[in-house]
Amino acid sequence: MESVTAIQEKPLPSESAQRKTKMEVYLDHNATTPLDPEVLEEMMPYLTSMYGNASSLYLLGRKSRAAITKAREQVAALIGAGEDEVFFTSGGTESCNQAIKGIAYLKETGHIVTSQIEHHAVMHTCQRLEREGFRVTYLPVDRQGRVNPEDVRAAIADSTILIAVMHGNNEIGTLQPVAEIGLIAKERNIPFFSDTVQSVGKVEVNVHKLNVDMLSLSAHKLHGPKGIGALYIRKGLEIRPLLEGGSQERKMRPGTENVASIVGLGKAADLARTHFDENREHMLRLRSRLMPMTETIPAFRLNGHLTETLPGTLNFCARFVDGLTLVMNLSMKGISISTGSACSSGSLSPSFVLKACGLGDEAAHSSVRLSLGRENTEEQMDYVMEEMVDAIEKLRLITAPEDIGACGENCPCFFE
Amino acid sequence: MESVTAIQEKPLPSESAQRKTKMEVYLDHNATTPLDPEVLEEMMPYLTSMYGNASSLYLLGRKSRAAITKAREQVAALIGAGEDEVFFTSGGTESCNQAIKGIAYLKETGHIVTSQIEHHAVMHTCQRLEREGFRVTYLPVDRQGRVNPEDVRAAIADSTILIAVMHGNNEIGTLQPVAEIGLIAKERNIPFFSDTVQSVGKVEVNVHKLNVDMLSLSAHKLHGPKGIGALYIRKGLEIRPLLEGGSQERKMRPGTENVASIVGLGKAADLARTHFDENREHMLRLRSRLMPMTETIPAFRLNGHLTETLPGTLNFCARFVDGLTLVMNLSMKGISISTGSACSSGSLSPSFVLKACGLGDEAAHSSVRLSLGRENTEEQMDYVMEEMVDAIEKLRLITAPEDIGACGENCPCFFE
Repeated sequence: MESVTAIQEKPLPSESAQRKTKMEVYLDHNATTPLDPEVLEEMMPYLTSMYGNASSLYLLGRKSRAAITKAREQVAALIGAGEDEVFFTSGGTESCNQAIKGIAYLKETGHIVTSQIEHHAVMHTCQRLEREGFRVTYLPVDRQGRVNPEDVRAAIADSTILIAVMHGNNEIGTLQPVAEIGLIAKERNIPFFSDTVQSVGKVEVNVHKLNVDMLSLSAHKLHGPKGIGALYIRKGLEIRPLLEGGSQERKMRPGTENVASIVGLGKAADLARTHFDENREHMLRLRSRLMPMTETIPAFRLNGHLTETLPGTLNFCARFVDGLTLVMNLSMKGISISTGSACSSGSLSPSFVLKACGLGDEAAHSSVRLSLGRENTEEQMDYVMEEMVDAIEKLRLITAPEDIGACGENCPCFFE
Repeated sequence: MESVTAIQEKPLPSESAQRKTKMEVYLDHNATTPLDPEVLEEMMPYLTSMYGNASSLYLLGRKSRAAITKAREQVAALIGAGEDEVFFTSGGTESCNQAIKGIAYLKETGHIVTSQIEHHAVMHTCQRLEREGFRVTYLPVDRQGRVNPEDVRAAIADSTILIAVMHGNNEIGTLQPVAEIGLIAKERNIPFFSDTVQSVGKVEVNVHKLNVDMLSLSAHKLHGPKGIGALYIRKGLEIRPLLEGGSQERKMRPGTENVASIVGLGKAADLARTHFDENREHMLRLRSRLMPMTETIPAFRLNGHLTETLPGTLNFCARFVDGLTLVMNLSMKGISISTGSACSSGSLSPSFVLKACGLGDEAAHSSVRLSLGRENTEEQMDYVMEEMVDAIEKLRLITAPEDIGACGENCPCFFE
């Protein structure tokens, strides 16, 4: 009788905190971002009255052409490139395919150096090229997900035709030492491509400072529309176009120009450039607001690198909590987060990125990713932290032993 | 003195007709079409609040996924296909590349049968494959731009891996005997692809009636947004994806789904299907309203086929008139037309399509294309006819001899 009373007196976790009303909080900006209203406003004329084909000679066509020129300048300004070095594509995936296959199919044979934690658009492209007879080295990463530039140097062979190492990782946020790798590539006169889809607009991405010959970017990762991206190709670097057709994009990318979306990408780039510092500070403020979580939740571990990281990406695992279950539980609270990348959501195999960082299957399966955006507020962060603590606590009531222990950076249970 | 008076009494062409006020008339719908306001309305939620990545598991992602499913059904319904046979791409050019290379790179070697008047997305793809060791037969067309199905039959070899013949030609409007060619392909068990980018929504395009294994379509040719298209692939036909990356579009086309544009394509397909008869009748009415032009203007010749044609496409040449000059003159009157295809506008070489139909350089250079759309009105047609007659008359004051003669269907001066 006494024990029953004791149980009743102990409040359930859901009642222990002062509950706030349900909020809608989107924390999956690495998957995609909401379109900025200013971007949409800039696009609207090209979705209504200014519908001309940019290759046409009459006024309506010339207006579209002028709009594309402006957008190209805006994208070039964001990454410190020349306008004639920016080519519009249908998005990040096409840009990555174009960069890598563009070199490979021109050279016809050779060796490619890349990492084990590239986005599928790069990794699967490299795997395809392997099946076609190219040789590929997939460099390992350390526990924080970093490639060692010396490993790049050591991997280079006389037959190396391309180095492809991403900038910010989409799952864990870790930033690679791209500038250093670029220097090594330069020394050896090997083209260097970096997938900067996640980093553009979030950290400084300047083609000269990063020493890259090609980089990919995608509008919908920076509050622009989906289905549009760009590839930077350093002037003088020859690559083979992937698609054949008309002579749009100076014969690099055929097909009627997607004017409205190109204008949207341009505006998104412009906003990212002009509000860069402010966005970055906001992101760091939001991030630090979430940080008490790392202390509050037992057996909690941040994945990735603490400082060399995309400021808005937080990937972590909480022991004995299934990541997918956590995602679904928070979804019911209005909070949108993900396990790993959107592209592999729904897949039941553990993240190859986390595995490459040395996480065991259990830890990889328990990981989730929060990726913040500029429209998020500090109030939202408080709500998320509260719901996160609560959800993990509840889930552990079912799945965890009484003493779950204190797992941290060096806890052996996380690593195989 | 008398002769001067006579000249003064003869009014200049510009004064001869009762002038209407300047109208804006867009007659280049084969280049691109204005976005239908109903299509834009359907897209708007996905350009604002419904921005979720369709691969994400939370509610916002599931809503995007549901929208894509609906759009796929709408496209499938328009062409009589199964939903699982429709794959979204970045547009007509990608669809054409994907269809042809998708077969070629799977088979690795072989022979392709196509025509001499395909769109560049098909022709340049075939030329690329030729450089890579494939053999390609480019079938000739008659003076109306038609391929003879018996030529297809005769061209087939044991090594033939693909037949690719377009449906409606973008420059002259001529419709190919696709259903008959499809029967021949079926008999020989050879995959048959038809580029139906121009014909979908304008004439009946049903994958079963046309006997095609693949067809391409593009949203912006049917009052949908630019940068989105689809490829129909008959169930059971295996082709190799062009791009590597995530597993979107059932592993056929990686990259974050362009939800808003896919929704727009779906709605455009739905409108094209539900208003098909009405649009077609409207187009025929507009076309016939322009027809007096063929009688009024001396030495005037319609290119293409009179009945087997896209109802809204009118391609013609008027002797001693430079097509490009005519386009620019009419542009100043608010009328947007083109010489040949938008993709080759600005190019000074004569249209390869017209050349394939047997036109000489002079006639090809003098040709212009009017392509009508559903928002055009009969009043606009009257204005266009008047301005066209006027412009040609004026240009001929400078360029033509006194007696320009009567050139018609069989005038030898047009053919080399």
